Amino acid sequence: MKQIAYLGPEGTFTQEAASKLKGELIPYDTIYDVLNIIDTKEDYIGVVPIENSIEGSVGITLDLLAHNYDLKIIGEIVLPIKHQLLTNPGTKMEDIDAIYSHTQPLAQCRNYLNKLNIKTFSTTSTALAAKTIKNKTNVAAIGNRNLAELYDLEIIAEDIQDVENNQTRFAILSKTPIEPKENFKTSIIVSLKKDAPGALYNILGHFTKSNINLTKIESRPSKEGLGNYIFFIDFECTKSTDLKNILNNIKTNISFIKILGSYKIEWR
Amino acid sequence: MKQIAYLGPEGTFTQEAASKLKGELIPYDTIYDVLNIIDTKEDYIGVVPIENSIEGSVGITLDLLAHNYDLKIIGEIVLPIKHQLLTNPGTKMEDIDAIYSHTQPLAQCRNYLNKLNIKTFSTTSTALAAKTIKNKTNVAAIGNRNLAELYDLEIIAEDIQDVENNQTRFAILSKTPIEPKENFKTSIIVSLKKDAPGALYNILGHFTKSNINLTKIESRPSKEGLGNYIFFIDFECTKSTDLKNILNNIKTNISFIKILGSYKIEWR
Repeated sequence: MKQIAYLGPEGTFTQEAASKLKGELIPYDTIYDVLNIIDTKEDYIGVVPIENSIEGSVGITLDLLAHNYDLKIIGEIVLPIKHQLLTNPGTKMEDIDAIYSHTQPLAQCRNYLNKLNIKTFSTTSTALAAKTIKNKTNVAAIGNRNLAELYDLEIIAEDIQDVENNQTRFAILSKTPIEPKENFKTSIIVSLKKDAPGALYNILGHFTKSNINLTKIESRPSKEGLGNYIFFIDFECTKSTDLKNILNNIKTNISFIKILGSYKIEWR
Repeated sequence: MKQIAYLGPEGTFTQEAASKLKGELIPYDTIYDVLNIIDTKEDYIGVVPIENSIEGSVGITLDLLAHNYDLKIIGEIVLPIKHQLLTNPGTKMEDIDAIYSHTQPLAQCRNYLNKLNIKTFSTTSTALAAKTIKNKTNVAAIGNRNLAELYDLEIIAEDIQDVENNQTRFAILSKTPIEPKENFKTSIIVSLKKDAPGALYNILGHFTKSNINLTKIESRPSKEGLGNYIFFIDFECTKSTDLKNILNNIKTNISFIKILGSYKIEWR
């Protein structure tokens, strides 16, 4: 059976996403640990969050894929994200003087938390936040409904995320690429040639002229000083798309390209 | 005298940046509070971090400028960022079982912290981290050199940031725009028209054709669901740049534009 490494512990949104795949689910403490096990053990695939519709990209996932690992995206999973404020049974709203969660849920509930005006602390996962508050009377955690059941907590405030369209996209990662069958999405990372004005414009031009739909274009700092960016680009392909030709065309404007993989479109 | 609101408390990198301006420095607890006071009191300007060369944009600053406030950027300040591991005098490396700092320094020292394998906790500022560890023997904070002096702490490990080119760019904000005298930079936010393929390509085309140098192009989720982005674009102008004409040209491809202001170039 396939081993599926995911950003744990149990009860996180990533587990919810990973449970849609067939295989044995194994939680890991950090995104770094998940990528590491996939990189070193052949029979492992992994599931990690890659972007959220409110907070944007998960920086560490993109940075590790760009700079530290040669792993392939073999699929994507999109989940709606709803956050609950969790306490131990008996805790009242006015008792709470600290709230624990992962930085992304904390950011996604920013307006709600600003109104509460309670100190927040970030943990490496929502499940660790639930674990941290267990049996304490004056603290709360933010996480999903599964956590309430798993850790015997009460939902003291429901669906506290700031906006409606809160979705997270997870990447399924593997050491080896797949060959997608029908229409598919391809993810690449490019860094632009320095002193090449209009490099990004030229690259986008090749996609526009070939009538290729970009589903994502997102910049990250290249870590080479302010103003230097790498771009994460996802684009839709059909069987007839001449991928080699497109990648060849954009090469004159880039100093670096990494092909993260082609995979079935679950979301566009 | 001008009142300068900054992301405090005392001893943060933002204070270091704000101290380059003339006026009375007043610390505020959050970026939200800084923007709020500038928005409500006429004689206040403010200084907040806007982007870091390693971690990318400061999401909350960009989101508040895009969605919540009509404030203007009237200047920029760029500082090199060096992080120190701070402890109370007498604490040894092997005693440390928790490290406190703001999420950005924690992220910027990720490799160093991964090797240490010590639990981290995020605070709303590096100064609060220093305050939090005061008089405790088994904890450390990450912050700048000023904090060591201010809180009587020792630097137990120097310059622990992961990479060399660590710089932060701060924005000087005001309720009223300025008219820059010579060459200047203009910052805008645009969101692309939906179902307009190539909209970003067309926008970039107008800049390229006018020989205008973009110093920044960065995407953020528009908060309207995955795949919808707004773009923060900074571009260089001279006295002869026909700003009105450029903004007019790109209008056919955008559903929303916000002009954040024109100001003197301190960094390109």
